[in-house]
Amino acid sequence: MAVPPSTYPRRLLPLFLGLFQGTLLLFFALFVTYDEPSAQAEDTILVANQVYSTFPFFQDIQVMLLVGLGLLLTFLPHYGFSALTHNFLLLNFSMQWALVLQGLLHHFHHGQIHLDLHKLLISEFAAVTVLISVGAVLGRASPCQLLVMATCEIPIYLASEWVIVTCLGVLDVGGTITIHVFSCYFGLGVSKALFRTTQQPLHPKETPTPHSDLMSLVGTLILWVFWPSFVAVLCQPGDAQHRAILNTLLAMSASAITTVVASSLLERDGKLSPGHLQNGSLAGGVAIGVVADMAMPPVAALALGSLSAVVCVLGFRCLTPLLGRKLTLHDQCGIHNLHGLPGILGAAASVLAALVASKDTSGSHPSQLSPARGNASEAVEGRWGRGGVGGQALCQAAGLAVAVGASLLAGLLTGAALRLPCLARPPERLCFDDSLYFKVQDQAESPGPDSSAEEGALALKEQV
Amino acid sequence: MAVPPSTYPRRLLPLFLGLFQGTLLLFFALFVTYDEPSAQAEDTILVANQVYSTFPFFQDIQVMLLVGLGLLLTFLPHYGFSALTHNFLLLNFSMQWALVLQGLLHHFHHGQIHLDLHKLLISEFAAVTVLISVGAVLGRASPCQLLVMATCEIPIYLASEWVIVTCLGVLDVGGTITIHVFSCYFGLGVSKALFRTTQQPLHPKETPTPHSDLMSLVGTLILWVFWPSFVAVLCQPGDAQHRAILNTLLAMSASAITTVVASSLLERDGKLSPGHLQNGSLAGGVAIGVVADMAMPPVAALALGSLSAVVCVLGFRCLTPLLGRKLTLHDQCGIHNLHGLPGILGAAASVLAALVASKDTSGSHPSQLSPARGNASEAVEGRWGRGGVGGQALCQAAGLAVAVGASLLAGLLTGAALRLPCLARPPERLCFDDSLYFKVQDQAESPGPDSSAEEGALALKEQV
Amino acid sequence: MAVPPSTYPRRLLPLFLGLFQGTLLLFFALFVTYDEPSAQAEDTILVANQVYSTFPFFQDIQVMLLVGLGLLLTFLPHYGFSALTHNFLLLNFSMQWALVLQGLLHHFHHGQIHLDLHKLLISEFAAVTVLISVGAVLGRASPCQLLVMATCEIPIYLASEWVIVTCLGVLDVGGTITIHVFSCYFGLGVSKALFRTTQQPLHPKETPTPHSDLMSLVGTLILWVFWPSFVAVLCQPGDAQHRAILNTLLAMSASAITTVVASSLLERDGKLSPGHLQNGSLAGGVAIGVVADMAMPPVAALALGSLSAVVCVLGFRCLTPLLGRKLTLHDQCGIHNLHGLPGILGAAASVLAALVASKDTSGSHPSQLSPARGNASEAVEGRWGRGGVGGQALCQAAGLAVAVGASLLAGLLTGAALRLPCLARPPERLCFDDSLYFKVQDQAESPGPDSSAEEGALALKEQV
Repeated sequence: MAVPPSTYPRRLLPLFLGLFQGTLLLFFALFVTYDEPSAQAEDTILVANQVYSTFPFFQDIQVMLLVGLGLLLTFLPHYGFSALTHNFLLLNFSMQWALVLQGLLHHFHHGQIHLDLHKLLISEFAAVTVLISVGAVLGRASPCQLLVMATCEIPIYLASEWVIVTCLGVLDVGGTITIHVFSCYFGLGVSKALFRTTQQPLHPKETPTPHSDLMSLVGTLILWVFWPSFVAVLCQPGDAQHRAILNTLLAMSASAITTVVASSLLERDGKLSPGHLQNGSLAGGVAIGVVADMAMPPVAALALGSLSAVVCVLGFRCLTPLLGRKLTLHDQCGIHNLHGLPGILGAAASVLAALVASKDTSGSHPSQLSPARGNASEAVEGRWGRGGVGGQALCQAAGLAVAVGASLLAGLLTGAALRLPCLARPPERLCFDDSLYFKVQDQAESPGPDSSAEEGALALKEQV
Repeated sequence: MAVPPSTYPRRLLPLFLGLFQGTLLLFFALFVTYDEPSAQAEDTILVANQVYSTFPFFQDIQVMLLVGLGLLLTFLPHYGFSALTHNFLLLNFSMQWALVLQGLLHHFHHGQIHLDLHKLLISEFAAVTVLISVGAVLGRASPCQLLVMATCEIPIYLASEWVIVTCLGVLDVGGTITIHVFSCYFGLGVSKALFRTTQQPLHPKETPTPHSDLMSLVGTLILWVFWPSFVAVLCQPGDAQHRAILNTLLAMSASAITTVVASSLLERDGKLSPGHLQNGSLAGGVAIGVVADMAMPPVAALALGSLSAVVCVLGFRCLTPLLGRKLTLHDQCGIHNLHGLPGILGAAASVLAALVASKDTSGSHPSQLSPARGNASEAVEGRWGRGGVGGQALCQAAGLAVAVGASLLAGLLTGAALRLPCLARPPERLCFDDSLYFKVQDQAESPGPDSSAEEGALALKEQV
Repeated sequence: MAVPPSTYPRRLLPLFLGLFQGTLLLFFALFVTYDEPSAQAEDTILVANQVYSTFPFFQDIQVMLLVGLGLLLTFLPHYGFSALTHNFLLLNFSMQWALVLQGLLHHFHHGQIHLDLHKLLISEFAAVTVLISVGAVLGRASPCQLLVMATCEIPIYLASEWVIVTCLGVLDVGGTITIHVFSCYFGLGVSKALFRTTQQPLHPKETPTPHSDLMSLVGTLILWVFWPSFVAVLCQPGDAQHRAILNTLLAMSASAITTVVASSLLERDGKLSPGHLQNGSLAGGVAIGVVADMAMPPVAALALGSLSAVVCVLGFRCLTPLLGRKLTLHDQCGIHNLHGLPGILGAAASVLAALVASKDTSGSHPSQLSPARGNASEAVEGRWGRGGVGGQALCQAAGLAVAVGASLLAGLLTGAALRLPCLARPPERLCFDDSLYFKVQDQAESPGPDSSAEEGALALKEQV
C-alpha cells in the first residue's frame, strides 16, 4: 500500500468512505430508479397528499436526529464538534447503507428498486439504531471504529427487525423494542468487548461545563418536541395516528415532571442533576413507542411516562455505577438508562396491554390492538392466526427477548472486531478532544492537559 | 413531618410535584378517555385531515415555547440552565393543570372527558400565560414559588378568558388580550407584591455576556419564525387563517426593522441595544394577534407592527426605569414592554377596526369581522345580538379592562402568597445562579462572588 | 443637515431605514390589498389546502434563513451578534423591498396588488440573494453599506431572473442559477470593487474559536435539514415535487460523506477542517436545485452531490487562496466555493440533462423535463417552440452566462458605490467586532486588541 504506515490510520477514513460512496453510486446506477411520472390527475393528487402527509414528519425526525441528538451529545465540553460531526456522518452513512441492504433484501426480486420517501424513512429508522449505540462509546472510539460499527449494526438490525416484526408479528409502531432496546444492548455489547475488563477512569475532559450542559439541554428540548413525530409517522392515518401523538405527548409530559421529582429526591442536597434532566425527560418517549397506537386509556400513557422517568433516573443513580464496578461495563451517555430500561418497561407494558385486551374483548374485537407498521393487514391476520390477543402478549415478550439476545451477541462480536489496531482507537489521554480529528484552534479558554496536534500524531504512530 | 427542617425547602419541590402528578393520574384514571375508534372510512379521513391541519401548528408552538422562549430567557449568563429548565417544567405543569381544570369546568357534565389534540392545544395556550408572567420575577424566585404562581394563575386565566371571550364576545384569535395583556399584568402584580417597596439593586450576575446575548437572540429568531403559527392555529381554515398568517408576517417584519430604527435613535451613540432587538422584533406579533384575522388592509398590519416596536423600545428606555424608581416595580425581562404595551396597542387597534367596520358596512356585512376562536358561530350570533359592530368596539375595550383589572388584582394576591417562608425565596446574593438548584460545575470562566453550594444550603437554612 | 457631522454615520442607518419603512407604508396604503373573502365553501377549502401545502415549506425556509444561515455566519467569534442581526435585518428589508418592486413591476397594471403567501415566498427568494452576497464582505462592511447593497441587488436580481426564466425559458426550480450563481458573483463583484487591490490581511478576530465553529456547524445542520423544502416549494405538487425532495436528500447526503473524504485527503495530517464541513455538506443542495425536479435517475443526484462537495472543498483549499493572491479578491465566507462553483456545476448538469433528454426522447416526450416554476404551462410551450429539448440545453447555458455576467457587472458597480465615505466602512482594526454596532459587554473571556467604544467613535469620526 502506498500510504506510509505512520499516517495509515488517518488515511483509512477517507479510503473507507470513498470506497463506500463509489459502491453506492454503482448500486444506484444499476438498480435504483424513481417511479414513472403518472399521467393521470388522480395519481398526481395521491402522490401530492402522500408528500404532504409524510414530509413534515420526515423533516421533524431529521431535526430530532441531527440537531436534537447532535446537541444532546455535546455535553462533553471539548468533544462537541466531534460529537455533532460523527452523528451527522453516521446518520448519512447508515441511511445509505440501509438503503442498499434493504434494496437488495426486500426489493431485488422486482428487478428495479423504486425509491420513494417512505423507503428513505425506513432507512432513517435503521440509522437511528447506530446513533443510539454509539452513545455507549462516545469519545473513546475513532471515526473508523464508528463506521465499522455502523457497517455491522445495520444488517443485524434489519435481520432482527424482520424476525421481530414480520416473523413474530410483534406490534412496535414507535420502535421501542426493535430500535431502542436493540441498539442499547448492541452498544453495550460493543463497549464491553472493546474495553474488556479495564475500568475506564474518569477523564479530566469528561466533566460537562455549565455551557456544554446548557447546549445539551437544548438538544433534549428539541428531541422532546419532535418525538411524537418519530412515534407516529408510521401509524395508520386517522385515529391510530391521532392516539399515538396524544399518548406520546402525555407520556413525555409526565416524564418531564417525574424526572424533576426523582432527581430531586435522589440527590442528597435536593439539587437536580443536569444529566437526569437531559435524559429522564425523554424516557417516556422511549417507553411509549410500543403501545402508542394501542387503544389504552390516557392514564396508562401518563403512568408509563412517569414510571420510565423514575427507572431512568434510578438507572443513572444506582445501576450505571454498579455495572461499571461489577461488570466493568462502560456506558458513556447512559444509553442503558435512556433506551434500555425504559424500552424494557415499554415492552412489558405492551405485554400487559395485550393481556388486558384479550380479557376485555375475549378476542371478539381485534381492532383493540392496532396493526403493526409496514405490512399492516398481513401482520394482523398472521397475528390473530397465531392465537389471538393472548398469543400477542407472548409475541411481545418473545420479541423483547430476541432484541436483547441478538443485539448483545452481535454487539460483543462487533466490539471484538473494533479492537483491530488499524482502526486506530485513540489512546486514553487523547480521548474526548476535538483536536485529534479536527483543525480547531487551541482552546485557550479551557486549560487542560497539554495535548497538541503533534502529540496526537505521535501517539497514533506509537499505537500503530 | 419526617423531613428535617433544615432541608425542608429542598424537599417541598418534589413533594409538591409528586402530589400533583399523583392527583393527575387519579383524575385521568377516573374521567379521561379517548374517542372511540371510528369504524367508518369517512371518519378516518376526517380525523387524519384534522391531524394534518393542526399537528404542524402544534409542533411549531411547542418549538416556540420550549426552544425559542427558553433560549430567549438565557440572557442571564449564570442562570441559563435554570431558565430553560423552569420554563420546561412550568409548561408541562401548567398544561396538565389546565387540562384538569378545563376538564372539570367545561366537560364534566358529559361524564367522560374525551381528550384530543385540540384540547391539548387549548391547555398549551393557558400554559403560555404562566411562562410570560414568570419573566417579571425571573432569577429571584424559587421553583416552588413559580409552581405556586402557576397553580394560581391557570384557574384565574381560565375564568378571565371565559368572561372575556364567551361572556363579552371579545374577538381575540391570537390571544393578545386574553393571554399577553393578562399574563403581563398578572406577572407585574406578583412582582410588586413579592418585592414590595424594596428596589432591587443591580445584581453582579444580572448583566448579559456577549454569548448569553447571542443565545437569547437565537431564541428571539425562533419565536419570530414560528409566531404566525401561534396566531393562526385557532383561526377558521381558509381565508381567515391565510389572512392571519399574512398579517402576522407583515407586522413582525415591520417590527424587526422599526426596532433597529428606534433603538438606534434612542441610544446616545447610535449603537443598538441587544435587549431592544431581542424584544422589539417580537412586539408586532403580540399586537397583531387580536386583529390578525379581521378584514383590514395589509397596511394596517405593517403600521401596527411598526408602532408596537416603537412602543416596546420606548418602554425599555423610559418606562421600565421610571416604574422601577417611582413604583419600585421590578420587571426582570421587561414583560411590560413586550407583552403589556404592545398588547394594549393591539386592543386599541381592535377597537378602531370594529369602529371602522361599523361605519363602512353599517352592520350589513357582519363577516367583515371574523368570528372568535372556539365556539365560532355561537359567539358571532351572541355578539351581533349585543349591538352590531359598534357594540363590538365597546366589547373589545371592556375585554381589555377586565384583563388588566383581574390580572393585576389576582397577581397582587398571588404575590402576597408567594412570600410564605416555606417557599424558600433565595436570598439576594444567591440569585441568578444555576448552582443553587442544579449540580453544575464551578463556572471557572466567570469569576464572580464566591457562592458555593455549602453557602447556599446555609443561606436557605438561615432564611427558614 | 441638522445632524452634527461627527455622528452622521451613526444616524444614517435609522434615517435610511425609517424613510424606507415610511415609503413602504405609503405604498401598501395605496396599492396593496388582500383577496376578497370568498363566500363559497369550495373556495374556502381551496384556500385552506393552499395554506396547508405552502405554509410548512415557508416556515422551513424561514428557519433555514434566519436560524440556520444566521448561525452558520457566527463562525467569527466576536462578530456573532452582528452576523445574526444583520442577516435578520437584511432578510426583512430585502423581502419588503422585493415586495414593493414586484408589485410595481408585475402587478401594477391590475391597479391593486393582491397579497398572498405565494407572493411573500417569491420575495423571500429574492431576499436570499442578498443574504448570500453579503457573505463575501462579512465583518468588513457597515450595516449602511449592506443596506445599500441590498437596495441595488434586489432590482437587478428581479431583472436577471425575468430574463433568465421568462425570456430564456431556463428551468431552475431550486434557484441554482438565478439565486446561487447570481448572488455569488454579485457578492464577489462588490467585494472586488470595495476592497480593490488591497489584499486583506488576516485579522486577529477573524479566526474561529472551537465554540464559534460549533455554533456554525449547528447552523449548517439546520440548513442541511430544511434545504429540501427550499428546493421543492415551488415545484408542481405531485411527482415533480416528490422527485425534487428525493433528489435533494440524495445529493445532500452524498455531499456530507464526500466532504469528509475530500477534506481528510486534502489536509496534510488527515484532520478535517471545520470550514469544509460547514460548507461542503451543503454544496449538493446548491448544485441539485436546477435539476431537482427533472426526470433523471437517482444516481445522478448522488453523483452531483459528491462532485459538488469535492469542488467546494477544492475551492476552499486551492482556489480561494489563489484568487486572494492573484486577483486580490476577498471572499470572507467562501461563497464562491459554496454557491459559485457548485452552482456552475449544477448548471452544467442541467445542460447535460437536457441533452440526454433530447437524445432519449427525440422530443417526443416533453414531460421528461419538468416545467419551470411560476408560469408553468406558458414556459413549457415557449420553450419547446424554441427548438425542443436540444434547444433547452442551449437555454440553460445561456442562462448561466447571463447570471454570471450581469451579476459580476452589477456587483462591481454596486461595490464602487459602497465606497462613498458617508456609508462609514469601519477601519480595519475595528472590523469583526460586535462592540462597534452593539451595546455588548466587554468580552472579558477573549483578550484581544483593545478597542473600546470610545475608540470606535473616534475612528469613525476620523474616517468621516
